[in-house]
Amino acid sequence: MTTAPWRDTALAAAARVDDLLSRMTLEEKTAQLYGVWVGAATDGDGVAPLQREMTADHDWDELITLGLGQLTRSFGTAPVDPAVGAQALARAQRRIAAAGRFGIPAVAHEECLAGFTAWGATAYPVPLAWGATFDPALVEELGRRIGDDLRAAGVHQGLAPVLDVVRDPRWGRVEETIGEDPYLVGTVGTAYVRGLESAGVIATLKHFAGYAASAGARNLAPVRAGVREFADVTLPPFEMALREGGARSVMAAYTETDGVPASADPRLLTELLREEWGFTGTVVADYFGIGFLQTLHRVAGSPAEAARVALEAGVDVELPSLKCYGKPLVTAVREGLVPESLVDRAARRVLLQKCELGLLDEDWRPEPAGPLDLDSAANRALARRLAEESVVLLDNPDGLLPLAPDTRIAVVGPRAADPLAMLGCYSFPSHVLPHHPEVPTGIGIPSVLESLRAELPDAKVTFAQGCGVSDPDPAGFAEAVARAAEADVCVAVLGDRAGLFGRGTSGEGCDVADLQLPGVQGELLDALVGTGVPVVLVLLTGRPYALGRWQGRLGAVVQAFFPGAEGGPAVAGVLSGRVNPSGRLPVSVPRSPGGQPWTYLQPPLGLAGEVSNLDPTPLYAFGHGRSYTAFAWEDFAGPDAEIGTDGSYDVSVTVRNTGDRDGTEVVQLYLHDPVASVTRPDVRLIGYRRLDLAPGQARRVSFRFHADLSSFTDRSGTRVVEPGALELRLSSSSAQVRHTARLTLTGPVRTPGHGRRLRCAAEVSDVG
Amino acid sequence: MTTAPWRDTALAAAARVDDLLSRMTLEEKTAQLYGVWVGAATDGDGVAPLQREMTADHDWDELITLGLGQLTRSFGTAPVDPAVGAQALARAQRRIAAAGRFGIPAVAHEECLAGFTAWGATAYPVPLAWGATFDPALVEELGRRIGDDLRAAGVHQGLAPVLDVVRDPRWGRVEETIGEDPYLVGTVGTAYVRGLESAGVIATLKHFAGYAASAGARNLAPVRAGVREFADVTLPPFEMALREGGARSVMAAYTETDGVPASADPRLLTELLREEWGFTGTVVADYFGIGFLQTLHRVAGSPAEAARVALEAGVDVELPSLKCYGKPLVTAVREGLVPESLVDRAARRVLLQKCELGLLDEDWRPEPAGPLDLDSAANRALARRLAEESVVLLDNPDGLLPLAPDTRIAVVGPRAADPLAMLGCYSFPSHVLPHHPEVPTGIGIPSVLESLRAELPDAKVTFAQGCGVSDPDPAGFAEAVARAAEADVCVAVLGDRAGLFGRGTSGEGCDVADLQLPGVQGELLDALVGTGVPVVLVLLTGRPYALGRWQGRLGAVVQAFFPGAEGGPAVAGVLSGRVNPSGRLPVSVPRSPGGQPWTYLQPPLGLAGEVSNLDPTPLYAFGHGRSYTAFAWEDFAGPDAEIGTDGSYDVSVTVRNTGDRDGTEVVQLYLHDPVASVTRPDVRLIGYRRLDLAPGQARRVSFRFHADLSSFTDRSGTRVVEPGALELRLSSSSAQVRHTARLTLTGPVRTPGHGRRLRCAAEVSDVG
Repeated sequence: MTTAPWRDTALAAAARVDDLLSRMTLEEKTAQLYGVWVGAATDGDGVAPLQREMTADHDWDELITLGLGQLTRSFGTAPVDPAVGAQALARAQRRIAAAGRFGIPAVAHEECLAGFTAWGATAYPVPLAWGATFDPALVEELGRRIGDDLRAAGVHQGLAPVLDVVRDPRWGRVEETIGEDPYLVGTVGTAYVRGLESAGVIATLKHFAGYAASAGARNLAPVRAGVREFADVTLPPFEMALREGGARSVMAAYTETDGVPASADPRLLTELLREEWGFTGTVVADYFGIGFLQTLHRVAGSPAEAARVALEAGVDVELPSLKCYGKPLVTAVREGLVPESLVDRAARRVLLQKCELGLLDEDWRPEPAGPLDLDSAANRALARRLAEESVVLLDNPDGLLPLAPDTRIAVVGPRAADPLAMLGCYSFPSHVLPHHPEVPTGIGIPSVLESLRAELPDAKVTFAQGCGVSDPDPAGFAEAVARAAEADVCVAVLGDRAGLFGRGTSGEGCDVADLQLPGVQGELLDALVGTGVPVVLVLLTGRPYALGRWQGRLGAVVQAFFPGAEGGPAVAGVLSGRVNPSGRLPVSVPRSPGGQPWTYLQPPLGLAGEVSNLDPTPLYAFGHGRSYTAFAWEDFAGPDAEIGTDGSYDVSVTVRNTGDRDGTEVVQLYLHDPVASVTRPDVRLIGYRRLDLAPGQARRVSFRFHADLSSFTDRSGTRVVEPGALELRLSSSSAQVRHTARLTLTGPVRTPGHGRRLRCAAEVSDVG
Repeated sequence: MTTAPWRDTALAAAARVDDLLSRMTLEEKTAQLYGVWVGAATDGDGVAPLQREMTADHDWDELITLGLGQLTRSFGTAPVDPAVGAQALARAQRRIAAAGRFGIPAVAHEECLAGFTAWGATAYPVPLAWGATFDPALVEELGRRIGDDLRAAGVHQGLAPVLDVVRDPRWGRVEETIGEDPYLVGTVGTAYVRGLESAGVIATLKHFAGYAASAGARNLAPVRAGVREFADVTLPPFEMALREGGARSVMAAYTETDGVPASADPRLLTELLREEWGFTGTVVADYFGIGFLQTLHRVAGSPAEAARVALEAGVDVELPSLKCYGKPLVTAVREGLVPESLVDRAARRVLLQKCELGLLDEDWRPEPAGPLDLDSAANRALARRLAEESVVLLDNPDGLLPLAPDTRIAVVGPRAADPLAMLGCYSFPSHVLPHHPEVPTGIGIPSVLESLRAELPDAKVTFAQGCGVSDPDPAGFAEAVARAAEADVCVAVLGDRAGLFGRGTSGEGCDVADLQLPGVQGELLDALVGTGVPVVLVLLTGRPYALGRWQGRLGAVVQAFFPGAEGGPAVAGVLSGRVNPSGRLPVSVPRSPGGQPWTYLQPPLGLAGEVSNLDPTPLYAFGHGRSYTAFAWEDFAGPDAEIGTDGSYDVSVTVRNTGDRDGTEVVQLYLHDPVASVTRPDVRLIGYRRLDLAPGQARRVSFRFHADLSSFTDRSGTRVVEPGALELRLSSSSAQVRHTARLTLTGPVRTPGHGRRLRCAAEVSDVG
């Protein structure tokens, strides 16, 4: 008996897959193109299809005789002990392998937006908090750690990261993004991809592309955007994460842009992604997204037509359903409506990936290699460090922070005592537990109140909730004001409750009409400020909120973006001074609640003077964040220069910690293009570097700017470097320029190479 | 002595202008390309440059020795008796003609958005009210009447109509638009153009193009839009008004779309406008818009560069300034930075227009032919009829309206007693008078309160203001509630105060963050409803406001959009029943204040189910409006049919007035395209017809639909007619379908001819 070529690990993957494809029936090939949403039975019996749209009417045993492309979220739908779940998943994989002619298991995928979304797994800070760290190296470690946990549980693919660039802060999914700047999103997101992929887990870039700009911040609403915004803001993080991060999967977005649904767009999914960027992995649908081509987008008249449109565009896998890629696709191929070559193209990509994962090998084993610990001490330590780096001190005008150890503190607010205040919508407790009211919510996550009491054992800490997160009832104000009035300082802990579809104030479907603090929290803050006791505002939110109303009236302002399981101690550490805050804003914090959308990348038109009575501009600018120590920026080197439109230029500065405690400065490099052939942002981020500095220590940071980094998409749709004047602004925020280098680019208009335009090289050396 | 060829009226205009150009110096040619903002001296001495940006540092006597392209708003900047102003203008024109070598006067232009914007001229309803009439014939009469008044005063060009299609109802300039549907805007706007041009006055289409979609509804903010939205929603009204209305001027918009400022866009201003659409008139800048290319858009580094960019794009005339097209342009031509041929191109267009206007003829006379009466009885009658046709009865569930003649009526609200409540931002009293506090505001316009007292002399009418338009002070609620409680019915007159740049709640620069009624007017309405006395809500607004909060709680709802000088009697007539309401909504009235922008043309994505907790959908749909009588829709003829993609099809219905009073039905035809290659609106308006019907009378209306009307812009940017199923829905609003005709288009994908796709032919015949 000889081994079939496709089983022969000595052969190249492409050859193995070609052989395998040649042996498969049409039905078997299409079965590789869909997934089924399953749940791990709580008794450990095994996974089974959930009673959900489009999978409920299929017999599992019959279904898997054809094989199966993907298994969807066997951990992610019920509070099951992950060790039990992993065993159940392994049994299901064995069953799938045994049922089909070829013995090929499914790719198992899970959500992992801010940690493995499984019961009991560590909930890390949300991506918006990663953005605030300006620390890609740490986020890469996070990706690796999450990947290790996923792999250990038998999961092959993680549905993260989200690389959507914030275009409207009112959108509920802002918490899932890394921020409003494509360079920050791209660099931090790429780091996460590198980490996940280095653990052998497939990273899935989403949502490709445009989703964040939905009209009116309404989740899923059509996107109004032109080709330049799309090319210069929306796409760069994806390109970077593919070219530099090696992500092996991309998820097609639900949305449409200017009339063309992403899942029906061959220019996006094939011409750009594969032919121009060279991507060779799989494109997966967002859940039920292929069916939406018929029901919501109406660019297809039936499930079979939706299958044709999506396959032609380049969506390889339908998740988590077989509504279109199941029988309708088979019938459409048989009737000549869909060429079988399109099925082969997609199946080849899926099988190549299964081959890379070892799922075609005879020695494939689904059982976990060892015991599972998804909330290890090492996980927690990483969660803590990320949280600590992500907290942004927005203001501390009179040095009210850090708090004295023996002070009287009134902790007030609806987010102070609730551990769920730490978590975003895609954490297991926020995402899944609301569907399981029978499960206790003792989730091992300390609140800010609890953490502050632990952090300052000698302080006299009182507490009053004051109000609910979104309830309009001010009945609790009186008690809160009384607690504040008795104290030396009031710590008001306000913010969001993450949830899905109307269950929260932030999260998927929890979009807002303006950027006022939810409910009556703003009125509570007014009442607390009215006591005359200094107020420290601590925000635990999924998006920025307008703070202009309290400008100059608060003792200090601390912004945390859902900082995860260790967020309580991190925030308490900042309040106590154990942690010197080092986060920087990944999104602008506006002055007024209205006039959105706006981000710092929008050209300055319409903001000058009295042309509108709406003011969307920031109170705290993108990149802003304070420290308990002070920094001097010395020995700037960036002389006026002329370079060619293919030239490069170095700019450097020494940053010295002139205070008396350890601290971190984030050196940010912005590009200002005074005149261009199309309108440009006033400034945009092109480089940054975190610098940890002991008291008195100085470090020199040098950025190598290549002219390609100044490129943008011109009127013809071509990316170009234009000759002319430029300014490189070394800054401590997008609004706080420290030093400016003035360049003139000379020579012809050029089309840049992709490598040099994606990243600014930065080097750090110790000084003196 | 022989007459120079350019003076020879026997020669063709082109030959005359060529001759004239050949005799002009560069300076004289550029002088034809700019205007100066002047004011008529109140003592009648003459016009003089205003002390405004960019004109103040020029000596008038020296300036006009070169000639002058345009005179800006000699009537529009101070409360001057128009007869005195017309004499002053004529003297200024004589002076300009005498100062230059060629004796050519300037083109005088004025604003005429809702009437000649001169002191004492009739203030007609605003364009949004024209949209509500669905009566292009009446709007054409309006255009002619305004044109006659302008011409009589010595004005050659009117800066109207606004053809921007509403894309965000929060925008302050919504009152200046005709509505949210391009077909309605195009047909009504074209009618206005026809009227103005038939009076010999140049109509100026504005703002070309895209302005209405400014981000966040912030006036002037960058526009995010793709090529399909631009081609299928923004542009059609302009094309229609040029091809069918014969407008001779177009104003380049301030805004940029996807990075390209309109004033710097040769594709828009030259390739599309002139080469594709065949336009031969002038393109004028919006005020100071060329300078903005340097200062706000930053696509030019100097005034000279701004001049080059704008001239190259196709902006012929700088208004009302010579900042760029004055000396900087001359210098730039001399230095070789701008080819003189570009100056010639623009000057030729300007001079051709002056030639057409007779301004190159020796018998040119600037003096008014007769006495001026800008507020004639005929004007007022037209203003009345327009106002009456524009009032929309949104709801009247229990027949509370019309009011009984002898009822006790409490009139309440900040808009009830203020005549300015009738006027939009571009009326003279709202636009100019705020700058002249010394002028009395007795403007001869009756308020709703005054009109209702006159209308119902036997009623007992009391009044309380209740609150201010935008003040937060509820101190007046108690009195208002007391008045309401004593009455049989409460008429709450709420709404906007129009103003410029922060002086109002509607108008240029008066953009809003959401669609809540301004100030505490919503709370006042709550308090009035709380009395239990039936409340008639009368809205005098410049935009739609969210009314879902009062759904089912109001006795009746009457919506008027700034109905002009005769708006008070019109509204009172509807309340009394003298006028049977016939207006239909030109914009959707939303349920909730948030989640904007939305219009009924947005594809349905994101509105199905629970995907967002924001709901921008209407409480009262586009096209909705009630009557005091009832209509039966009978004898529908629209059989299922197949037609070619170049075919046509007739659909018809008989409408009978089944009530006992005269009334007007507006038959609306909508197109539903179930499946297309790009996403489409659920329905869009393609035809409509007002039908006045006596009790028992029946009239038959027939629409001839050509397949070209189903065309849209495909993915390649080409306008196409696609084969497939279509539905033609004969409807009484966009949400109220009466009869549906089902068509199948067969044959190849086609590119439509422009004529047939711009308009649906409709015919009306009397029946039996």
